[in-house]
Amino acid sequence: MNDTINLLMNHKSIRKYKYEPVTEEQLETIIAAGQMASSSSNVQAYSVIAVTDSELKAKVAGFAGNQAYINECPVFLVWCADMYRLRETAATQAAGVETYENTMENFVVSTIDVALAAQNAAVAAESLGLGVVYIGGVRNNIEELSEVLGLPELVYPVFGMCLGVPDQDPVLRPCLPLKAVLHRNGYDKEQSLAGVKEYDETLSAYMRERSNGKQSATWSEMMTKRLTEPARLQLKSFLDGKGFMKR
Amino acid sequence: MNDTINLLMNHKSIRKYKYEPVTEEQLETIIAAGQMASSSSNVQAYSVIAVTDSELKAKVAGFAGNQAYINECPVFLVWCADMYRLRETAATQAAGVETYENTMENFVVSTIDVALAAQNAAVAAESLGLGVVYIGGVRNNIEELSEVLGLPELVYPVFGMCLGVPDQDPVLRPCLPLKAVLHRNGYDKEQSLAGVKEYDETLSAYMRERSNGKQSATWSEMMTKRLTEPARLQLKSFLDGKGFMKR
Repeated sequence: MNDTINLLMNHKSIRKYKYEPVTEEQLETIIAAGQMASSSSNVQAYSVIAVTDSELKAKVAGFAGNQAYINECPVFLVWCADMYRLRETAATQAAGVETYENTMENFVVSTIDVALAAQNAAVAAESLGLGVVYIGGVRNNIEELSEVLGLPELVYPVFGMCLGVPDQDPVLRPCLPLKAVLHRNGYDKEQSLAGVKEYDETLSAYMRERSNGKQSATWSEMMTKRLTEPARLQLKSFLDGKGFMKR
Repeated sequence: MNDTINLLMNHKSIRKYKYEPVTEEQLETIIAAGQMASSSSNVQAYSVIAVTDSELKAKVAGFAGNQAYINECPVFLVWCADMYRLRETAATQAAGVETYENTMENFVVSTIDVALAAQNAAVAAESLGLGVVYIGGVRNNIEELSEVLGLPELVYPVFGMCLGVPDQDPVLRPCLPLKAVLHRNGYDKEQSLAGVKEYDETLSAYMRERSNGKQSATWSEMMTKRLTEPARLQLKSFLDGKGFMKR
């Protein structure tokens, strides 16, 4: 154990922020730490939009689920996979030559790249005493949100991230037991699903505690509910329209 | 600045490892730290295969580009997006009911989830004095690699990660300037591409230094070369065959 691992082990998503700013220095430190994450062949295929203008932030929040904490946090980061910068760079160097920015491979590469950078940034933010929460809701109305941020082709908002000074200290949420996710020298279906059974009890107890006995859903119940509800079915055609995954 | 940010700012991919083991305790600490990363609606849609068997590792290395460091590192982690566990969980709870594990949304969710967990694990490993390098090469022969690891449908290897005691201390690679990736209240094409121009000189100087004057390619030149070469074009049909992105 050390301070960094201690920090990682105590991550809690923050959904209530104090009315305090994030300084320009903090923001730049956080993004610079994000940039130091690994990147596939150094492509750095991501961009991050810092939304601080309160009118724009309200619009973005409206498209992303209208959570109060998006409006309340001083900085809302929209993390985007970005093959546009690469394509433009190649276009000036090799005009008229066929390029492969629009492959499934580069869609996956840019999505990984932005996630690694964002997680480094999240860790850096928490090490500075700030709090974050990832917002998948930026994919709710992804077309409208992309337009209001002026995202060009080959750029898509992968997730958002609230950034600010925490005004709550939630209970740690337990994870799946290690055996559900860590396999040895090959995928072990039985061990993974046995881990789910154990976790059902752990999470149900956590839910009961957090809700003062009002809720006690198991993970299996929650996941089943989630999986039987269609969500963000427009994503495939949106990404196609942005020029991704053509081959 | 603090120790954690200092650690993040000094990340270097390690491609040479000592002949020393990673302990079981270290491995479990690293994966547990990975698990504490955020997950979309707590789906935890990933699995990680620790490959330690040297015969299996040689096979996996062969499929992933045959880098010496995959064979040399004591633990090779194959990080997988995993919608199989969720689908199986829902299938036992709601047999016969339509489920949406096969959407573009859930492909993106599981790819993000595994990347966030892996980056936390990478940070934890480095905080323990270990080194890592991400291996996109697991997507070179993704069909064969998936088969040798017994990956079921709705599971795909997103990237690998060597883990071990570093036997080198490479020079830090400079990143794109902040202005190329950090946009304010909207995407700024001109600023981003101006950042690329600056970076071309920085990276060319870094390449010259690292190669004792033998190489001096700019980032634009390297990226153009990469983008004009087709790579991993089989990924789209492989993922389709695994049941991803059907709608």
